[in-house]
Amino acid sequence: MRNYLFETWRNVARRCGYVEYETPILEDTGLYLKKSGGELSSQLFRFEDQGGRDVTLRPEVTASLARIVATEQRKYPKPLKWFEIGQCFRYEKPQKGRGREFHQFNVDILGEAGPGADAELIALAIETMLSFGFVEGDFVVRVSDRNAWVKFAAARGVNEEAMPDFLNLVDKLEREKPEVLAQKLAAFGTTLDEVKGFVANPQDAEGTFNEILADLKSRGFGGFAELDLSIVRGLAYYTGVVFEVFDSSKSMRAVAGGGRYDTLVKTISDGAVDMPATGFAMGDYVIRNLIEETAHAAMQMEVWLQRNSAGCEAYMVIPDDAMRGEALKLVSELRRAGIAVDLPLSNTKVAKQFQAAEKCGARFAVIIGEEFPQVKIKILASRQEEECDASVLVDRMLQSLTEPDGPLLA
Amino acid sequence: MRNYLFETWRNVARRCGYVEYETPILEDTGLYLKKSGGELSSQLFRFEDQGGRDVTLRPEVTASLARIVATEQRKYPKPLKWFEIGQCFRYEKPQKGRGREFHQFNVDILGEAGPGADAELIALAIETMLSFGFVEGDFVVRVSDRNAWVKFAAARGVNEEAMPDFLNLVDKLEREKPEVLAQKLAAFGTTLDEVKGFVANPQDAEGTFNEILADLKSRGFGGFAELDLSIVRGLAYYTGVVFEVFDSSKSMRAVAGGGRYDTLVKTISDGAVDMPATGFAMGDYVIRNLIEETAHAAMQMEVWLQRNSAGCEAYMVIPDDAMRGEALKLVSELRRAGIAVDLPLSNTKVAKQFQAAEKCGARFAVIIGEEFPQVKIKILASRQEEECDASVLVDRMLQSLTEPDGPLLA
Repeated sequence: MRNYLFETWRNVARRCGYVEYETPILEDTGLYLKKSGGELSSQLFRFEDQGGRDVTLRPEVTASLARIVATEQRKYPKPLKWFEIGQCFRYEKPQKGRGREFHQFNVDILGEAGPGADAELIALAIETMLSFGFVEGDFVVRVSDRNAWVKFAAARGVNEEAMPDFLNLVDKLEREKPEVLAQKLAAFGTTLDEVKGFVANPQDAEGTFNEILADLKSRGFGGFAELDLSIVRGLAYYTGVVFEVFDSSKSMRAVAGGGRYDTLVKTISDGAVDMPATGFAMGDYVIRNLIEETAHAAMQMEVWLQRNSAGCEAYMVIPDDAMRGEALKLVSELRRAGIAVDLPLSNTKVAKQFQAAEKCGARFAVIIGEEFPQVKIKILASRQEEECDASVLVDRMLQSLTEPDGPLLA
Repeated sequence: MRNYLFETWRNVARRCGYVEYETPILEDTGLYLKKSGGELSSQLFRFEDQGGRDVTLRPEVTASLARIVATEQRKYPKPLKWFEIGQCFRYEKPQKGRGREFHQFNVDILGEAGPGADAELIALAIETMLSFGFVEGDFVVRVSDRNAWVKFAAARGVNEEAMPDFLNLVDKLEREKPEVLAQKLAAFGTTLDEVKGFVANPQDAEGTFNEILADLKSRGFGGFAELDLSIVRGLAYYTGVVFEVFDSSKSMRAVAGGGRYDTLVKTISDGAVDMPATGFAMGDYVIRNLIEETAHAAMQMEVWLQRNSAGCEAYMVIPDDAMRGEALKLVSELRRAGIAVDLPLSNTKVAKQFQAAEKCGARFAVIIGEEFPQVKIKILASRQEEECDASVLVDRMLQSLTEPDGPLLA
């Protein structure tokens, strides 16, 4: 299951020209305090190590990425298109769509400030969903731009320091009581109606999302994205275009989310490196739920799991343990040829050996009996049998396994 | 690099009939204190979480495995053949062959007490080394049996409580000063000469390793294993056959090691489940060093890395940005077909676009110019060019990439 997610993520990233990198799981706590604060800092798995250092199990990867990019970026041509699949930790109540340990697919483009990079990233998010077997109507990418809200608020006299509080209020638009919102918005010189009107007509707002939508339409992805100014994202470091992927019924948490963080590399490097960036992350919890609850995506995964199950292709049956030496030699040869083979590890009754063969999912039993070097190959499903010389067993098995209609199954 | 190790490990485990499992990185500290003690407990990344629980970043996987097996074993037919590839943590000085964060390949057989299971496991260790391209003469598996020492010591009056101290002394045979050893051994009613004599003639010792060696010989692996009673392994929980894999010059730490731990499941389950077990682990540090320092193994890895590099197969060149929409459509189509494609994310000079194409390792540049829907495919290495209609671009590219002597390269 986990391997299905990882392989799909890795394949999509490769097709779209991203390079894999790796960052440590354990980081200096300062890295997270410096950067984000807010909700995240109360959810840190934070502790003092034996050397007295204040360390944290990473709650996310972007801070580590920014740190590495700040020190290593000279070595690589721009833009950087990087991805990592890694484990993250958050101290919170385990619940549907959330666990304390989870894996994240992180994808980032650094060194490119234009909307082309945002669109390329959102296209990757869509491509990922399509690769899991989702189709139009199953999910939607809600695209927004914090700058549209910054301009909206600035026109009403909100200054830079108050901006995070204002954005925070917009973030709560769908969850907070209207009367509370109305009261709080008044302090920013606006009304709930005005804010809702802005959300209702995003195409009139100034923002780069119109360019992004045009780009996505060219790619044939117009049907997957919609402008939605109610999206602003929780973390403080976002600076421009932000987006979230949702199941169409919006019955779950966001499947993935991301956006621009043009000032983070500068903050982390204490001003040494200034590099625009945009990135997104998809965790393994929500996507897993969504796949399981969407019939066609679930079926695709089922097929993959069956094909990639660790079950054996063949099981060696050794009726007389005196033949174990000969059987071991053949096991070794078959495995070297890439065939998955299991065998009884001690003297066992023949009936039990056949049971074990069925339980491990083997298609064939290879019986090493007293007729050796003649050995018997038995198809477990049909009980058909065939004999061959031990010296040609590997070839015979390879043929039978690679051609579904090979001699044994004819 | 990491992916090369993981893929090789996973393939070998699959061929040999093991099933992949997953355990958490963060465990209750009691799990480790209960089990091993000694050296390991001073190296724990141990801390109190926000809920006041004493937790530890796992230093190894076997304790978690034993815990899970104790609760879940009824669901599976025996023997269990399980493997996990996972991250582990030890608080110690980073040095050659050791890091604070590392990955481990863990393989275990549970529910089978006989030497056939030990041999099956050691065969997997050998198979793993062969799959990395090592050959006879590059490495050796030193096989031993703690029970041979237990019998040796019991015959000299050493009681059960003193046994761990005696085994600890044997473990230091190659590192401790002879005069110190001689003095300490006297307390156990033996001499350094007697102990060395026992090590020098392992075939005379009682132990199951002779059966194991015979098994390995049947598999064609006789040349990779040797009896070596000086191996006893550091951890307290080992109970019988133990082994370590070394580079032939023994210039490095052990590449892998393992052995029987027949009482661990019982200890962890407080007596509820009694199950014999044998397992081994290979970390990513030493094997990485050994591959890099062994020419033929290093070359095999190089070839894999080149084949699996995240580099692009094609790069879209867009001389006039007005054609970006058409280019994006083709990018989308090519990626859907599984071809790795990159493109300039903003309006860029043509010369820079060709530079980017070469830097990302692309074989082909696809030029979307004013002749559209005619597009140009250029082989970057030979500068050969060919034109085709945009509607057949995907087919043309697939053909060129899958057949090395396809039309474009003829």
